[in-house]
Amino acid sequence: MLTREQAEKARARARGYLQKAGIALRPDEAENIEVADFGLGELEATGLEIVLYVNTDRVCAKELVLFPHQTCPEHRHPQVAGEAGKEETFRCRWGTLYLYVPGPRIEHPSAGPPSGREAHYTVWHEVVLNPGEQYTLVPNTLHWFQAGPEGAVVSEFSTASRDEADIFTDPEIQRLPVIASE
Amino acid sequence: MLTREQAEKARARARGYLQKAGIALRPDEAENIEVADFGLGELEATGLEIVLYVNTDRVCAKELVLFPHQTCPEHRHPQVAGEAGKEETFRCRWGTLYLYVPGPRIEHPSAGPPSGREAHYTVWHEVVLNPGEQYTLVPNTLHWFQAGPEGAVVSEFSTASRDEADIFTDPEIQRLPVIASE
Repeated sequence: MLTREQAEKARARARGYLQKAGIALRPDEAENIEVADFGLGELEATGLEIVLYVNTDRVCAKELVLFPHQTCPEHRHPQVAGEAGKEETFRCRWGTLYLYVPGPRIEHPSAGPPSGREAHYTVWHEVVLNPGEQYTLVPNTLHWFQAGPEGAVVSEFSTASRDEADIFTDPEIQRLPVIASE
Repeated sequence: MLTREQAEKARARARGYLQKAGIALRPDEAENIEVADFGLGELEATGLEIVLYVNTDRVCAKELVLFPHQTCPEHRHPQVAGEAGKEETFRCRWGTLYLYVPGPRIEHPSAGPPSGREAHYTVWHEVVLNPGEQYTLVPNTLHWFQAGPEGAVVSEFSTASRDEADIFTDPEIQRLPVIASE
């Protein structure tokens, strides 16, 4: 669980990365950046900061911010209510993203799972995304990603986001954020 | 019809605007920016420069560049093969965009149609998009847009683009570009 203070601090930090990436936010967006710690309480290692631009029944677009070496844990987007799972494209805008998907395992990966969580990272085909580079995932593909040493800002273009339906490899993960009410 | 030289010049100019907006392109994207003059042969007045990031059966994302006062002419995206028409969100990244949609007509619009084309502009509800501001169009909504005096860079997040199906109000418009083969 994140305290309000931790969430506020992460939001301020995320705003700094978005600014470096030259991305303009409205004041209401800047204030409401989603901070996801996936219920593990180790935001620096396992976490993601999200600006949601649009999420309709058909289309979703977001800006993702990852702090240096921050990891979005392994998951997939299954079919929901008879509709094919979420199809998503990640386009790196700033920094470097290491994306892992099914395929031939890389011998010396550039990223590694957060300490103690190794068992829940099972796909090891590495895709490196520098600014202007992008990758499209077909629905239900297991994937995880981690920022390089500078951090990363990544645009996500996809079909509808239904975060509550995501399936994480790590059984301890809780996708929907819980912020302490104090 | 655009000559190769005109198209190359427009591409170089569009790259300049994308750079001002802080948007990173790969070399192959920078070389292949689409230059659409809509068959009218007056690119400065009626035209659009496009970087297509992804266009699958479900999702499309693009960066649009408009030179100062350049206009994307009035059109709509109809239902195609039983599927609802294209749903699109325009998000201004840099500059100013004046977007016109159905609704109460604005008394003193900030933009005006290209000279001689006035009859083919019929919707006059004005939406002004500055950096960070966005607008979502439901399928089949008539719309046109024009950049302000600085030009504009706008992200488009949408369902599949099927440009050949677009319906323009101006019967002289030909959406798919024709470039002189010389």
